Amino acid sequence: MNFTQKLQNIWTQNNSLVCIGLDPDIGKIPECIRSEKHPLFIFNKALIEATADVVCAYKPQFAYYLGQGMIPDLEMTLDFLKANYPHIPVILDAKFGDIGPTAEMYARAAFQHFCADAVTVNPYMGGDTLKPFLRYPDKGTIILCRTSNPGSGDFQDLVMEGSEKKLYVEVAEKAAIEWNAHQNVALVVGATWPEELQQIRKIVGNMPILVPGIGAQGGDIEAVMKKGQTALGFGLIINSSRNIIYAGSDASFAEKARAAAIELQCSINQYRNIA
Amino acid sequence: MNFTQKLQNIWTQNNSLVCIGLDPDIGKIPECIRSEKHPLFIFNKALIEATADVVCAYKPQFAYYLGQGMIPDLEMTLDFLKANYPHIPVILDAKFGDIGPTAEMYARAAFQHFCADAVTVNPYMGGDTLKPFLRYPDKGTIILCRTSNPGSGDFQDLVMEGSEKKLYVEVAEKAAIEWNAHQNVALVVGATWPEELQQIRKIVGNMPILVPGIGAQGGDIEAVMKKGQTALGFGLIINSSRNIIYAGSDASFAEKARAAAIELQCSINQYRNIA
Repeated sequence: MNFTQKLQNIWTQNNSLVCIGLDPDIGKIPECIRSEKHPLFIFNKALIEATADVVCAYKPQFAYYLGQGMIPDLEMTLDFLKANYPHIPVILDAKFGDIGPTAEMYARAAFQHFCADAVTVNPYMGGDTLKPFLRYPDKGTIILCRTSNPGSGDFQDLVMEGSEKKLYVEVAEKAAIEWNAHQNVALVVGATWPEELQQIRKIVGNMPILVPGIGAQGGDIEAVMKKGQTALGFGLIINSSRNIIYAGSDASFAEKARAAAIELQCSINQYRNIA
Repeated sequence: MNFTQKLQNIWTQNNSLVCIGLDPDIGKIPECIRSEKHPLFIFNKALIEATADVVCAYKPQFAYYLGQGMIPDLEMTLDFLKANYPHIPVILDAKFGDIGPTAEMYARAAFQHFCADAVTVNPYMGGDTLKPFLRYPDKGTIILCRTSNPGSGDFQDLVMEGSEKKLYVEVAEKAAIEWNAHQNVALVVGATWPEELQQIRKIVGNMPILVPGIGAQGGDIEAVMKKGQTALGFGLIINSSRNIIYAGSDASFAEKARAAAIELQCSINQYRNIA
């Protein structure tokens, strides 16, 4: 079963478009688990056990494990997910992008070493640098299109001579037309840009769109749903990290995270075409 | 001493613009060391000891360590370089790029965990995503501009309405004008595009340019030197990986690598304005 099918199944089974970003910062996780040998894994494991029936995906952010010298905690998290929740898609958020042979190494890292179901990639270097990822038909390649950050327009909004299209539109069109032969492509579009989300949805049809930027970054759920969902109320992977994983700060953090995830699930579902 | 000054010193001291890409593939390194506990580190260590007086930088490619599950070998390589050759700049080639708090984690990984002198980054997400790197005044931030791969023109060559400039030119201009307050910015321009290199050199003045694509990728040394060097014969970090690190395949690999590095150094120096 490929990434897109797996996503379709879980959207239905858990009735949820919520993705939880597993971006643990050792300085922010509950003090009661900071002295564990693998504190980030212990934190993630508790969050996963508390929320596995209300999410459509988990998205560990690679930078947090690398920057804190805790790659083993990431490996343990992925192993735990694969062993216990093989039906839930796992997105490694790493924004890889490099020339052919190097991109092959990154694809190997994402899909064979970490065994993620999908990985985020950066298109700046061109279509040939995405091929090593796209070549895995069962794995999702999630391409940056219009990102959630304030400066995302610096280059993504530049208008091309001739086509009169913005750069992110060129990316969306290539994703829909050239790169999706295996139906394994998805895009990243920030919740902070609902008009752009609507435009991209029209270009890519039912392609899954990963939407970061809800919550801490200020994205609006109603606008995202109205502009981004498909006719049948699917098509979105709406990520929240900080608002869920840090909902509580004591021993009850996992319970509080579950409550926050359910609240987000409900907020989203009230705007779904068919919920 | 910041990255640019360190580079200027070593360019002069070693009379070399050669950077060696430390991109070891366990399937390609000499068989006699493959069964070592840390084979990639052993390989790198021998290469470094054999070439430290003929290079201006080392550039480990992050993907090779991650994809093969050998991050400890990368850590050992960086530690070895810092302990024994602190005057040689080390560039972590990882092409990081992400929103603010995540980019901070990547900057921490590159500059504090691995202790690299510089890191490669991807500008697609916009100027605000580069700031967490630029904020380290002593560390180099090397921004992708015109990459060496065949498909690099897919987006980098698109012409912008209004300015009539290509995307990579917009990146080069921002690098020169907006992002270089600490004189710690450099660019990546592939050896495979000498005309573009010349155009970028005019935009960025004496800014260092990292040039991959010599050797295996087909870049021409004479063209790179004529179009890319500064008036005084500096300004370039010319990377070669495969042609140097795999110059030999038996126990004499390090010696052969040294010979290949010196050959490249001489090929380059014959075209330097002042060598």
